[in-house]
Amino acid sequence: MQTANPKPADLADDAQALFRATRARSRELVADLAPEDMVMQSMEDASPTKWHLAHTSWFFEQFILRERVPGYASPDDRFAFLFNSYYVQAGPRHARSQRGLITRPTVAEVMAYRAHVEAAMERLLDEGDPEVAELATLGCHHEMQHQELLLTDLLHALSFNPLMPAIRPPEPRALSDDQPLDWINFDGGIREIGHAGPGFAYDCEGPRHEVLLRPYALASRPATNADWIAFIEDGGYADARHWLMEGFAKAQAEGWDAPLYWWKQDDEWWSFTARGPQPVNPHAPVVHVSFYEAEAFARWAGARLPSEAEWEVAAQGSEIAGNFMDEGALRPLPGQAGAGLQQMHGDVWEWTRSSFDPYPGFRPPEGAIGEYNGKFMVNQYVLRGGSCATPRAQMRHSYRNFFHPDRRWQMSGLRLAKDG
Amino acid sequence: MQTANPKPADLADDAQALFRATRARSRELVADLAPEDMVMQSMEDASPTKWHLAHTSWFFEQFILRERVPGYASPDDRFAFLFNSYYVQAGPRHARSQRGLITRPTVAEVMAYRAHVEAAMERLLDEGDPEVAELATLGCHHEMQHQELLLTDLLHALSFNPLMPAIRPPEPRALSDDQPLDWINFDGGIREIGHAGPGFAYDCEGPRHEVLLRPYALASRPATNADWIAFIEDGGYADARHWLMEGFAKAQAEGWDAPLYWWKQDDEWWSFTARGPQPVNPHAPVVHVSFYEAEAFARWAGARLPSEAEWEVAAQGSEIAGNFMDEGALRPLPGQAGAGLQQMHGDVWEWTRSSFDPYPGFRPPEGAIGEYNGKFMVNQYVLRGGSCATPRAQMRHSYRNFFHPDRRWQMSGLRLAKDG
Amino acid sequence: MQTANPKPADLADDAQALFRATRARSRELVADLAPEDMVMQSMEDASPTKWHLAHTSWFFEQFILRERVPGYASPDDRFAFLFNSYYVQAGPRHARSQRGLITRPTVAEVMAYRAHVEAAMERLLDEGDPEVAELATLGCHHEMQHQELLLTDLLHALSFNPLMPAIRPPEPRALSDDQPLDWINFDGGIREIGHAGPGFAYDCEGPRHEVLLRPYALASRPATNADWIAFIEDGGYADARHWLMEGFAKAQAEGWDAPLYWWKQDDEWWSFTARGPQPVNPHAPVVHVSFYEAEAFARWAGARLPSEAEWEVAAQGSEIAGNFMDEGALRPLPGQAGAGLQQMHGDVWEWTRSSFDPYPGFRPPEGAIGEYNGKFMVNQYVLRGGSCATPRAQMRHSYRNFFHPDRRWQMSGLRLAKDG
Amino acid sequence: MQTANPKPADLADDAQALFRATRARSRELVADLAPEDMVMQSMEDASPTKWHLAHTSWFFEQFILRERVPGYASPDDRFAFLFNSYYVQAGPRHARSQRGLITRPTVAEVMAYRAHVEAAMERLLDEGDPEVAELATLGCHHEMQHQELLLTDLLHALSFNPLMPAIRPPEPRALSDDQPLDWINFDGGIREIGHAGPGFAYDCEGPRHEVLLRPYALASRPATNADWIAFIEDGGYADARHWLMEGFAKAQAEGWDAPLYWWKQDDEWWSFTARGPQPVNPHAPVVHVSFYEAEAFARWAGARLPSEAEWEVAAQGSEIAGNFMDEGALRPLPGQAGAGLQQMHGDVWEWTRSSFDPYPGFRPPEGAIGEYNGKFMVNQYVLRGGSCATPRAQMRHSYRNFFHPDRRWQMSGLRLAKDG
Repeated sequence: MQTANPKPADLADDAQALFRATRARSRELVADLAPEDMVMQSMEDASPTKWHLAHTSWFFEQFILRERVPGYASPDDRFAFLFNSYYVQAGPRHARSQRGLITRPTVAEVMAYRAHVEAAMERLLDEGDPEVAELATLGCHHEMQHQELLLTDLLHALSFNPLMPAIRPPEPRALSDDQPLDWINFDGGIREIGHAGPGFAYDCEGPRHEVLLRPYALASRPATNADWIAFIEDGGYADARHWLMEGFAKAQAEGWDAPLYWWKQDDEWWSFTARGPQPVNPHAPVVHVSFYEAEAFARWAGARLPSEAEWEVAAQGSEIAGNFMDEGALRPLPGQAGAGLQQMHGDVWEWTRSSFDPYPGFRPPEGAIGEYNGKFMVNQYVLRGGSCATPRAQMRHSYRNFFHPDRRWQMSGLRLAKDG
Repeated sequence: MQTANPKPADLADDAQALFRATRARSRELVADLAPEDMVMQSMEDASPTKWHLAHTSWFFEQFILRERVPGYASPDDRFAFLFNSYYVQAGPRHARSQRGLITRPTVAEVMAYRAHVEAAMERLLDEGDPEVAELATLGCHHEMQHQELLLTDLLHALSFNPLMPAIRPPEPRALSDDQPLDWINFDGGIREIGHAGPGFAYDCEGPRHEVLLRPYALASRPATNADWIAFIEDGGYADARHWLMEGFAKAQAEGWDAPLYWWKQDDEWWSFTARGPQPVNPHAPVVHVSFYEAEAFARWAGARLPSEAEWEVAAQGSEIAGNFMDEGALRPLPGQAGAGLQQMHGDVWEWTRSSFDPYPGFRPPEGAIGEYNGKFMVNQYVLRGGSCATPRAQMRHSYRNFFHPDRRWQMSGLRLAKDG
Repeated sequence: MQTANPKPADLADDAQALFRATRARSRELVADLAPEDMVMQSMEDASPTKWHLAHTSWFFEQFILRERVPGYASPDDRFAFLFNSYYVQAGPRHARSQRGLITRPTVAEVMAYRAHVEAAMERLLDEGDPEVAELATLGCHHEMQHQELLLTDLLHALSFNPLMPAIRPPEPRALSDDQPLDWINFDGGIREIGHAGPGFAYDCEGPRHEVLLRPYALASRPATNADWIAFIEDGGYADARHWLMEGFAKAQAEGWDAPLYWWKQDDEWWSFTARGPQPVNPHAPVVHVSFYEAEAFARWAGARLPSEAEWEVAAQGSEIAGNFMDEGALRPLPGQAGAGLQQMHGDVWEWTRSSFDPYPGFRPPEGAIGEYNGKFMVNQYVLRGGSCATPRAQMRHSYRNFFHPDRRWQMSGLRLAKDG
Repeated sequence: MQTANPKPADLADDAQALFRATRARSRELVADLAPEDMVMQSMEDASPTKWHLAHTSWFFEQFILRERVPGYASPDDRFAFLFNSYYVQAGPRHARSQRGLITRPTVAEVMAYRAHVEAAMERLLDEGDPEVAELATLGCHHEMQHQELLLTDLLHALSFNPLMPAIRPPEPRALSDDQPLDWINFDGGIREIGHAGPGFAYDCEGPRHEVLLRPYALASRPATNADWIAFIEDGGYADARHWLMEGFAKAQAEGWDAPLYWWKQDDEWWSFTARGPQPVNPHAPVVHVSFYEAEAFARWAGARLPSEAEWEVAAQGSEIAGNFMDEGALRPLPGQAGAGLQQMHGDVWEWTRSSFDPYPGFRPPEGAIGEYNGKFMVNQYVLRGGSCATPRAQMRHSYRNFFHPDRRWQMSGLRLAKDG
């Protein structure tokens, strides 16, 4: 975690406000769910809603309350075993693949656990300790990450139900129109990327450092569903020439012939969304595609995926604008329309061609907190931007999201690039 | 299904009483559970509580209401897809392995579905049609089978929770004392087995037919936990000479060294039960052992498992006595103490050496109802008797329970036999 | 092993003659193979040719030479580890699934091992000890079983080669004509089955004992390829009503729509055989079908499979006639044509409805030899008769062959039965 | 493939000489093997020796002879199906995982196929066409890659044999002594990497391009077995803090506690090598470790792995010296002793921290030849240098070898790096 120029009093106030808003938002996200929805695990990558709610509370308990509140008592010490995700230095933990087997504590008991942790945190935050504020800020960002996962995991879970139940509205904004794709050019040369403060960032976003770029161009908008349907109709899924070999093997083995959650019905494409089954909107960005598919699509289109440095440098000039999911129920059309790069944030995560590797000079912090990002730096690829399911406060130019190249259940799409 | 000498009016009254008692008992079984407990599936063999509750209602709807009530409307026609188990002739069905992925309908909605089916059944039963009574009786017995599975599946599910929650009290009765094992002798010759009415029986219990037996002896009591501990301590699990080859391979692959749910703690054996963790009672019948283990134990003991014909012929003289689970909260000590065969019913299912094969002359009924038992007649072994989780009305001398030889999550034990 | 009335001198002479013939026949079977053919293992159930050749020599070494020849020295003591199949009491052994990973000893070295064992056995047999003769007879019968497996395993292995190489000619004899199926009736009552001597038999063929049969009928001939094509064309593979549930699940999962090795080409059925690809002969017995398929076929045909007792009692009157594979290159048309049961031996193994269970009073011999059959008595089904790949000396009315119900690589077919 | 400044006549002569030397070397590599050794496939990643010999001939046939020799006839057109590895545009191909199931063509037939292709190639090369020379050069380098794989695959195959047969001598050279590790420093700044001719290189080695480096240091020598034993003895394999999460999960799942082929015997480490079982030499470079292990080792050592750019820039000044495997049976001690970077080539491949990604501006050639490297650019990590099993002509500073991070059967080790 990196924060620049902390001013202690402000930092503490900010942290407390962020803590309240974040915790409230988690409650709001699950307000309409039945307990039955919140127990289920549909694959090893995904976790039950209930687990997300408990784990994000355990995080505050483990890394702040147990360390800094003398005599702090957990409602149940065994929760530490159940709700630790992967922090080896925080002790043994329950197998990830078996989170769906845990029916107790019930949702009501987890909610009571949340309230317990919140009360203890409020008392601690009142003391104004800047170190606590800093850790609490990390805890809130951690919880925001899980808010997004909670939604994508839940969508995945519900997608197995032939009744196709609907839950909530987040979805990528359609482009104002069938927006033609423009190419926006960028010069080469030595540039800087990485977080430089002020404000919060994860450890892996730094150190800020120089990179050497060659001239390049980015597409003015994300690839749309209409673009993707053209790829499908041109036989893109069946033509090995476009694909990385592992990608093609995976696509064949899994029978991929469209993005996740799509099906064809009476000659029209439909998809399962958080609002239930919907016809595919051709003007909206394509979502739920893997890195493998994005790479093949780009090659088919005669282009390529950008590197994460190209993406970040291009984004650096712009503001992160829009009314985001957590700031209002419906957002107006994007403000950047007309010229320039559109919808860089708030609709879909954009796959880049960069594997998730340490930046030069990267050193994880000491202790269990240091396990936050560094131990994932293999076999994963970076996504940039932020989706309609991403809280506003998670979006910044330097943010490095990452997933394995075959994963499709996130709100993942792409933006084309080419050499300048 | 076989019923002898049906007297129409009595049959209808009996069916209605059985229907009310059976449905009430299902509600009672789940009264203390949280919705979260009722959604989970811990292995393909087991089903969520909610599924059992819905499936047993679908059975009445599918085989009675849809056939015989003009204009019958289901609350949701899609339930037929979700809650058909394996009846191919009743239409397509949801994959068995994915029953834990269905969070909706919620438990409350399933309970409403049950009430809907019950109201329609009550109206139909009032009409006194003996065919309906016969089918409803089958439906009730079917539901009683699922009541037992509901309990064993739930125990399996909860066993994955490190918090080891407790639910309800059924457990095998201990023998009055460290009962020494006696051998009860039986003559050989031609005998009859199979259901001969009156009363309900499943199709696979007939036709009644002659079998040729050689003189044999049965143990006066089931094998106890003390017996089993002797087997463990003599290295029984590690000595391939006692075992069928597939049994030994399975035991090694799974790391079996005691019955399911057992562990050793401070030199004492404990087990996870429906009442939570409990020390193993040496005088109680051993339970949660597979056919493979039972077979190895018998060979180690210098004996063998009985055939199902030997078991049934031995049982024929006796009454099915005791206060069973569904007839009172606690049962007195068994009545048969002293001499003769003890605890043949109401404590543990007893593995026999007989594969589950059709009796001579067996013909399954026409239509989907005919899929009830016949299609399972391969690779499974017969258990006789009835356990502490078996409703009283399910116990009769001719009842043929069956499971694969590696399954352990049922209340399965054994009784030794030897040549006479 | 059971042999009645052994006359020591004859027995020793017979054993020596049998030993020479059996060993010569193994050499002959592999004479035309390349070393490359003899190393490969195509599935866990099958073994490399080289392994069969070595294992059958190890059997003589382990159970006879090491026990009875003072100072006997093996060419390599490590062969005992590599070539023990499953005899736990004979020491640890190499994993069955990894037999194809052993390139050394080479075929030439295995042949030298065979010669070494043969020389030692010849010297020992010369001494005329009847116990040795009895064990050697068992070893020869054991080797004959492996001769058949060697052929079926090799066929399986070669079937993966798109070049479809041919090896040798054994194949089931076609019926003289499109033989109409007659039903041959048998009375019920108490009958005897099981081996009663004189001559060799395996332990599991006894004790001879009484069985109680009801009147029944057997088909006059095995089911033919023409019969099977009718089953296929009537949609038999896709109609779950005919099938055991596990059978149907297996058929669907594996995509079975015809016997193993069959494919359709220009509207004609072909199959891969030991003589390479051949058009399917409609008049020949169907072969390479599993128990599951045989059971479904029988139900589709309105009949059933016989029990093993029904099969054996029906066979008891008849002679085992014909010129068998090991007695000449080509055999004349079967002699029993016209009336009676045709082709009970020498063409296909016939699945019965009987699981492979111990006969009443069965006790395996002490020691490792006792592991021969008893430890397999679960989850397997009995086949009777003998196929075109079975040595003549292996065929007798009491012989109990057995395989799992999903196995298809043996020369397995069926004969219909029905109640009398 | 990139070659700079081709001078036609020289190029043709060079190609012919290279072709003869390469083909002769393949024959020589297998001269002592039995046919049985050459058929076996021990895992999907590895191929049978026979397959390597045939595939490298198919490559010349497919990409040169069929294209450029009018009327060229293959000995068997079906070989194209069997011996195509992964070139989608060259037609359908046999499943990689089933290469061990192909016993025919025999080794002798494959050798005849090789001779046939060689004769046709010789005639074609005589014509002096520079395009043919260029393609033939690629074919020879391709064959040299397979020579190395042939050795590592064969070692893997033989390692499953409890008899542990030995084949041939290549092994990493020990350092002259227990060489202390020095750090060699390099400046940062803009540097160039990638192939710049003259001479052969694969497509993925270009385009040559600028990279921006920060000051760094490389270890003077590869990590040795003594270093690795220190890591083991310090509990390195069991301490999750050193490891990437996927690496640790893999290590735990596979039970890794030492490099592949190592075991402990009487308190001494041994390993299975091409020369049979050998005590581990503490002064020799460690080999047969995965990227995961190399990464964990580096973190444990307080260092890191170099990037591939750091490695290449450091190597650029130096000569590739030594007597390599294909240039003599035994090599003298390395010449670079004393100062500077030792044993950069000819002993072990060195894992870098760089994922195998396209260089800026990389475009694969058109057609099937273009599938050579580009389609592998995901989930693999780059190794640099060259091992004792690598032909001399394969070694150059720009060479990018690559494998998945969990693979261990290659001659893979590492050299430490740190920030300058």
